[in-house]
Amino acid sequence: MLTKNDIKLITRLKQKKYRNQDGLFVVEGLKTIKEFLASSFKLSQLYTTETFDLSNDLETIISEKDLKKISFFTNPNTALALFKLPEAKIINENKGLIVALDAVNDPGNLGTIIRLCDWFGVSKLVCSTDTVDCYNPKVVQSTMGSLTRVEIVYTDLETYLSQSKLPVYGTFMDGKNVYKTNALAKDAVLVMGNEANGISKPIENLVSKRLAIPRFGALQATESLNVSTATAILLSEFKRGF
Amino acid sequence: MLTKNDIKLITRLKQKKYRNQDGLFVVEGLKTIKEFLASSFKLSQLYTTETFDLSNDLETIISEKDLKKISFFTNPNTALALFKLPEAKIINENKGLIVALDAVNDPGNLGTIIRLCDWFGVSKLVCSTDTVDCYNPKVVQSTMGSLTRVEIVYTDLETYLSQSKLPVYGTFMDGKNVYKTNALAKDAVLVMGNEANGISKPIENLVSKRLAIPRFGALQATESLNVSTATAILLSEFKRGF
Repeated sequence: MLTKNDIKLITRLKQKKYRNQDGLFVVEGLKTIKEFLASSFKLSQLYTTETFDLSNDLETIISEKDLKKISFFTNPNTALALFKLPEAKIINENKGLIVALDAVNDPGNLGTIIRLCDWFGVSKLVCSTDTVDCYNPKVVQSTMGSLTRVEIVYTDLETYLSQSKLPVYGTFMDGKNVYKTNALAKDAVLVMGNEANGISKPIENLVSKRLAIPRFGALQATESLNVSTATAILLSEFKRGF
Repeated sequence: MLTKNDIKLITRLKQKKYRNQDGLFVVEGLKTIKEFLASSFKLSQLYTTETFDLSNDLETIISEKDLKKISFFTNPNTALALFKLPEAKIINENKGLIVALDAVNDPGNLGTIIRLCDWFGVSKLVCSTDTVDCYNPKVVQSTMGSLTRVEIVYTDLETYLSQSKLPVYGTFMDGKNVYKTNALAKDAVLVMGNEANGISKPIENLVSKRLAIPRFGALQATESLNVSTATAILLSEFKRGF
């Protein structure tokens, strides 16, 4: 049974304020929920039309109609789960490739970048505090479980980069052609910027290796690539040699 | 002045059926409209809150309030234009890199792929008839003018590929590592598949060069890349040597 209060508590988790206040976030869909159940994330409550055979405390069987009431989607798939927000982590490693995001705003872009990190074996993603929340339902949905495999930290990016011992890469119009750069470091931070403004000035000052993705189109061709496709191309370049 | 009939005629252009029936599609926003005006697309009517100094026949000055009524967006930007659908073209070239889409459904993905073609100097895009319409308002918006520079043809993809003299590339799990393939042809067709099902069987039978984008993440990492990020990585590989 689903109470009015349940509905209120679940639907308000669309907002970051309530996710932080309640320490919970929503995961939807059979396949994605199973990936979260198999991960280190802790289940708080599962609302489902088909039993998962979890303990009674954690599982509530509900009707399709009730699922529609709490789902963020028009066509919900079997179940909706509330997981506990993990504790904030600190990244202080100097090994491997780390992606850092400077004010990425669009949930779809963040979701795509998390999936790309998962694909390319980038296990750490450092987000500026003004980057969209990775527990936003749209991000959770678009990551399709990659969120369970990529470690994500929100922190003051300027402080993080100024303390990091790794070379810091970023892309700029006047950067060095990434296809002609022989030695992309194996241990590095790759900074990707905001959709409209790119990398902000204080962060640009901390970039030690300026790269560019060359444009092959006509002079009047598009001025920029979307941040998630640019991330795809750069991660491919960082990894293709290994 | 905007009549009730204008509003009806404009808003129904959200649907492909009416776009084809009326031979018109919608372009919004100052910058994108200017790119279309400077291209070979023919303006039918412009509704704007600030004059573009076009002939009276083509330009209608409207209020912000009226613009909100016809715009597909919550926050419309200055103007909305109706352009004439171009005549259907035929692609029968055997030069350069051509991207072919097999039932790509998502307007955002198609928009991103059109921008990628523009960036990488791919001037021809062949779409299967069941690929989402490139004059869909969401596609037009997300291409940001690239639609004026990439030639797009909707056709029976099976017939097109079986008649093409170019090598046909496609990506499959069991394909050859794209990073280890020395000779990606300069003149070729690159087929990208549907979001959920990849390349369909009849099209797969026409692929002569099977590629794969290797995964670097853990064994349990994400099974697939989004079609637009996969296109970004492949176009980058096709072009990086030149």
